Amino acid sequence: MQPYLEMSTEELQALRKQLIAQYREYQGRDLRLDMSRGKPSVDQLDLSMGMMDVLSSDSDLTCEDGTDCRNYGGLTGIGEAKELIGDMMEVAPDNIIIYGNSSLNVMFDTVSRSMTHGVMGFTPWCKLDKVKFLCPVPGYDRHFAIMEYFGIEMINVPMGADGPDIDMVEKLVAEDESIKGIWCVPKYSNPTGTSYSDATVRRLARLKPAAPDFRIYWDNAYGIHHLYDDEQDHLIEILAECKRAGNPDLVYKFSSTSKISFPGSGIAAIAASQNNLEDITKQLRFQTIGHDKVNQLRHVRFFGNIHGMVEHMRKHADILRPKFEAVEEILARELDGLEIGSWTSPKGGYFISFDSMEGCAKAIVGLCKKAGLVMTKAGATYPYGRDPRDTNIRIAPSYPPLSDLKLAMELFSLCVKLVSVRKILEDRGEGQQLSVQS
Amino acid sequence: MQPYLEMSTEELQALRKQLIAQYREYQGRDLRLDMSRGKPSVDQLDLSMGMMDVLSSDSDLTCEDGTDCRNYGGLTGIGEAKELIGDMMEVAPDNIIIYGNSSLNVMFDTVSRSMTHGVMGFTPWCKLDKVKFLCPVPGYDRHFAIMEYFGIEMINVPMGADGPDIDMVEKLVAEDESIKGIWCVPKYSNPTGTSYSDATVRRLARLKPAAPDFRIYWDNAYGIHHLYDDEQDHLIEILAECKRAGNPDLVYKFSSTSKISFPGSGIAAIAASQNNLEDITKQLRFQTIGHDKVNQLRHVRFFGNIHGMVEHMRKHADILRPKFEAVEEILARELDGLEIGSWTSPKGGYFISFDSMEGCAKAIVGLCKKAGLVMTKAGATYPYGRDPRDTNIRIAPSYPPLSDLKLAMELFSLCVKLVSVRKILEDRGEGQQLSVQS
Repeated sequence: MQPYLEMSTEELQALRKQLIAQYREYQGRDLRLDMSRGKPSVDQLDLSMGMMDVLSSDSDLTCEDGTDCRNYGGLTGIGEAKELIGDMMEVAPDNIIIYGNSSLNVMFDTVSRSMTHGVMGFTPWCKLDKVKFLCPVPGYDRHFAIMEYFGIEMINVPMGADGPDIDMVEKLVAEDESIKGIWCVPKYSNPTGTSYSDATVRRLARLKPAAPDFRIYWDNAYGIHHLYDDEQDHLIEILAECKRAGNPDLVYKFSSTSKISFPGSGIAAIAASQNNLEDITKQLRFQTIGHDKVNQLRHVRFFGNIHGMVEHMRKHADILRPKFEAVEEILARELDGLEIGSWTSPKGGYFISFDSMEGCAKAIVGLCKKAGLVMTKAGATYPYGRDPRDTNIRIAPSYPPLSDLKLAMELFSLCVKLVSVRKILEDRGEGQQLSVQS
Repeated sequence: MQPYLEMSTEELQALRKQLIAQYREYQGRDLRLDMSRGKPSVDQLDLSMGMMDVLSSDSDLTCEDGTDCRNYGGLTGIGEAKELIGDMMEVAPDNIIIYGNSSLNVMFDTVSRSMTHGVMGFTPWCKLDKVKFLCPVPGYDRHFAIMEYFGIEMINVPMGADGPDIDMVEKLVAEDESIKGIWCVPKYSNPTGTSYSDATVRRLARLKPAAPDFRIYWDNAYGIHHLYDDEQDHLIEILAECKRAGNPDLVYKFSSTSKISFPGSGIAAIAASQNNLEDITKQLRFQTIGHDKVNQLRHVRFFGNIHGMVEHMRKHADILRPKFEAVEEILARELDGLEIGSWTSPKGGYFISFDSMEGCAKAIVGLCKKAGLVMTKAGATYPYGRDPRDTNIRIAPSYPPLSDLKLAMELFSLCVKLVSVRKILEDRGEGQQLSVQS
């Protein structure tokens, strides 16, 4: 295929007419396709229906230490859930607090507590003039939203093949005491699918932040969410690495079963050093008498142990893999060689990240929407919704059925072509008669 | 029975010897009785075991508006849960947000949000020099604990037969802009069992606080928790009353199913005006993608509707009523006429409140503990754990089996007698040879 940039203006104008005709055809089909969020599909939800059967009115809802899971108490979670989730998070059960159904809620609470009460005895952030966080970009919009809500300034750090630009991270945190944290999705990152290299994790664990209350917010959302049995990314376990590095308190690690059991009804957890857990538990005992222990027990009885959970994840992979492969196949078939976009090929997680030519992402997502395909908002992967080069689009293949997904990706590719052609023509001074719509 | 105060010193000293002998006997029995918290008993938990069966792997977990309860979303709760909990809270479904398993957590979050972001656009409390709350006393220790955690100053307001001293409340809130709230357990109050009179509720709804961001924290924890079918307290619905009074935004109403279904695994809710709910939802969308909808659906399918819930509460009452009656019978049998204590006779809720002679509560609870009976800590029903007259003891009859409860109340009565005798002797200058233990 010939790169668009090498085509003559006449060729591009002819191509544009063809593409517009194809687009009109899609518009006439009254499509309603949604690829905006990383939601598991109905097939995936069905995998966990057995959870509804593991507890019945005949069940003994007592856990191993004799606690009646139905009653009050159990502030930090039941032992067997700590063991299961500990194995999932690769940390000891003692380093875990089990929460309710949402790790986002745990992260929100962690920031909120730091605002009102500070971290391990340091000044509450609400008493400081300025609090900043480093945000590897592109990244997860809900992390950035928490920052905006609390008025925390975000500093972009570019993501590379090994994770965030670690030279830049080291330099910034060493210089600026107002930098209190960094958001990391270290494995099968949202949205690039990148996993941090061993060198990156080691250097993160050895950061020397100017702020003594600096923490790495390690949102390991896709720790066991592989697509393949034989090709899996491996991530160094950060809690142990921080300990080895003499920085045991440097990290909060977050995870949940949201994309393992049911997204709305899983269990979430934080893992951290004993010092951090003590600090967190001080708050927790005012906040609640305990989270839902019956649901913790339900998860333990359903999965049995980490082996059962890993087996279960294979079933998710069997559903997700063809979807990821379809996205990549269609992008390759439609766009390879045109030099108007690039995309990632993750080995796990929930997203493929697409980069268009500069200044095209918003227009592509807008054009998709006008033909009935909702993508994640362009810019969403950047703090304040501002993608400085307007290139990044997050593709979420999980939710639509495969046939819809294929249709969606064909339409998406068409929109990429159409916007790219227009952009090139505009850049050549041929844009006056073109509108976004056409 | 002769009042102790009318007995001669010699009579009291003889009595004291008898009582000590009885107490030694209890001490020799190696008892382990716990009446410290308002926990439902195992029998009560068993009432809700059917909840484990209403959803199975064959169930359709779609709710009425088509939402798949298993997936992400549903920020403010599913419609049918809002209807059920709305009926329980006597408000329209539109005035409700359903949360996770803990209304304490909802209250904590409400205070925390007010600290960091303020109430409906007013200055965040963390930016103010001083924030105060009114605390009707005796009251609920976990409310007071939230205040202490956030450094909010508590002002005691005495509880009477109609609720808090409303003259004092009106005066204080009108005068002092730093008073931002009042904690109310308006029905079958913790610990007195008092329900607020119509006049009190009407005057609360018509408060004219100096602070525009003042809110009534209406923790209606025992709204349908009656002990009797024929004798029930009735409480004016505060949200509607505030609306009628032209103060629609004055109140946050909290409730949960913790003492209806399972304490650890119920659903909690806040009810408030549309203005307040909008303000709350602004936070909520940063905090979570949604609470556990499967558990919401489980509650709806189990109870069916408010009628089913009311029927279910009758079964709780059948278990609780004999316990409350046993406590009152034993107290009456042992203490009537001695003029060394008084107690409440609630028609619902979870507690009986006992008032000893001045300066005796701590010693009574301490003596109980030394014989193997754990009561709620004396002072716990007051802010900062300081009961200024040292008289109030919260009795929680729900958890122990009836036979244990009777034994516990006999031991408790004995400790009341023993401490009272000692106190009278001390007051008469006969205390030098007495120790707390004897």
